[in-house]
Amino acid sequence: MINGHGDDIYGCKRKIISNFSSNIYGRQDFSALHDHLCSCIHSIHAYPEPDAASLVELLAKKNDIQTANILVTNGAVEAIYLIAQAFRAKKSSIIIPAFSEYEDACRIHEHQLSFASSLSQTDKEAELIWLCNPNNPDGNVYHKSYLDTFISEHPDIFFIIDQSYEAFTDKQYTFTVRESLAYKNVILLHSMTKSYAIPGLRLGYITACNELTDKISAFRIPWAVNQLAIEAGKYLLKEGKPAFDPETYLAETKHLMTALNAIDGLTVLPASTHFFLCKLIRGKASDLKQYLIDQHGILIRDASNFRGLDASFFRIATQSREENDQLVKAIKEWI
Amino acid sequence: MINGHGDDIYGCKRKIISNFSSNIYGRQDFSALHDHLCSCIHSIHAYPEPDAASLVELLAKKNDIQTANILVTNGAVEAIYLIAQAFRAKKSSIIIPAFSEYEDACRIHEHQLSFASSLSQTDKEAELIWLCNPNNPDGNVYHKSYLDTFISEHPDIFFIIDQSYEAFTDKQYTFTVRESLAYKNVILLHSMTKSYAIPGLRLGYITACNELTDKISAFRIPWAVNQLAIEAGKYLLKEGKPAFDPETYLAETKHLMTALNAIDGLTVLPASTHFFLCKLIRGKASDLKQYLIDQHGILIRDASNFRGLDASFFRIATQSREENDQLVKAIKEWI
Repeated sequence: MINGHGDDIYGCKRKIISNFSSNIYGRQDFSALHDHLCSCIHSIHAYPEPDAASLVELLAKKNDIQTANILVTNGAVEAIYLIAQAFRAKKSSIIIPAFSEYEDACRIHEHQLSFASSLSQTDKEAELIWLCNPNNPDGNVYHKSYLDTFISEHPDIFFIIDQSYEAFTDKQYTFTVRESLAYKNVILLHSMTKSYAIPGLRLGYITACNELTDKISAFRIPWAVNQLAIEAGKYLLKEGKPAFDPETYLAETKHLMTALNAIDGLTVLPASTHFFLCKLIRGKASDLKQYLIDQHGILIRDASNFRGLDASFFRIATQSREENDQLVKAIKEWI
Repeated sequence: MINGHGDDIYGCKRKIISNFSSNIYGRQDFSALHDHLCSCIHSIHAYPEPDAASLVELLAKKNDIQTANILVTNGAVEAIYLIAQAFRAKKSSIIIPAFSEYEDACRIHEHQLSFASSLSQTDKEAELIWLCNPNNPDGNVYHKSYLDTFISEHPDIFFIIDQSYEAFTDKQYTFTVRESLAYKNVILLHSMTKSYAIPGLRLGYITACNELTDKISAFRIPWAVNQLAIEAGKYLLKEGKPAFDPETYLAETKHLMTALNAIDGLTVLPASTHFFLCKLIRGKASDLKQYLIDQHGILIRDASNFRGLDASFFRIATQSREENDQLVKAIKEWI
């Protein structure tokens, strides 16, 4: 799906002041990263390493695994398409509501698709299960211990677990890469885009056992990851500072969820990360979105095009206290 | 093919002083472009336009065509794979020697492959013909008038013409985009990587009639082109300065070809662009390559892994006069 995602500022006529529409937290001080990228800007005039090898090495060290267990990709989105391609025409079950690219990638590569609202309800004949943990768009999570049991009980199914939001939730929910490598049937997706708020550079990676990375690697194209993304990834891994303080951020999320849930005519769905779904009792999210753009320069994610949701849903990613308060006020006004 | 391309500086133990191994001419003054990119470095913290729409608009204006005739891609390499995917399992004929990615992309998408050393020798049953004009690695060209006739006589074959090096040859050889749109069976590939010496950013584009761009577009992934590549592309198109002076550069190429051809034990193949093939009468290109790295910090492209060539071939892309003279001297030494 080329259009219809969040962060669609480019489509807005009015200047956007507050952007709640993408699950990126970009409030950190990035000046050191910017200085670093400008200091190596001349590197745009040579080809990148075809497989981002030097970044792979740093990721291997950081995760205490072998380089053969890692494939760096042009954003997590490229990873999704490569996996769908490597498992062409298989039976895939997708846990919904879900990021639309799993379905699109599976359709392009002729998978037989089914959809389930939870792991326990997936098609018994599925060969692949796609889930996002924590899940986009609803911020839902599976406990790692539950996943452990479920995966062990289904050794013939390949589990593609998108952990793009692993930095934004409690560690009890997500696998470490080392933990996941105990399984021969688990592929983890990671997003440096999300963890480090660099979606403009496009940087993600796959981790899995050698057999699976070999299988997927056969479909890669050279130089898929640009040099400045490689430079940024290496810098951020070496610098080692967390991109933000998850505890403070998740506390702010709770505060915002409570304030929104107190509005008559709005229900906030439970979530275990920094973004969450809201459901309008009356009216359409697309109308609210347009009102917020026109009257307040606020951008939200109309979530009606997620499979399993309808026109009443929108998604919010927590921002600063001041912006969050402004959002609550503006939504009250509209309702 | 992930590894085995040129510009493999990252694989060299010794510092490379002169790089003849990639077909990029990077001797221009890039300071204005660098300043521009650093001034918009904050843009890495938002998603790019999913389809690079604003760059597509500028390209449409520049080429005097509709935006629907253009797809911007993550380098010309992504374009090659998208086209092979859109024409999955067709009969493809590739003019060799050729950039290896045509073959790799066709194999991944299960084309029936044949190879020919010229257009007139292609398989009569081919549904697609892939050619590069001017051709990598040998710098060979087809005259536009010859292509015109051949394409008109074969309306049922789709021609994928890679014009990545269009900026580096005489205009009588290559199609303008408008000229190519007269055909319903021609897809042109363009490389801003090559024209503007920005391979680290990854930026290419496809032009074709609407029916063909629609067909290919169905396989695109969102945000494939990173924001700084989009920014650079827009800046370079607006700035409008030629990245270099083709006449001077091609004259320097002739000078270098003549000097190399005068070496006993070496044959230079004719070419109509800034890069060309050399053939060793005795010895292997891989040995010469290693000698030049170790003794002189010079990198050349061992061309033995191009289909149709053998261990005696290497490729040279012209650099500055001083470097070219140094190369001639070093090769003489080795021979």
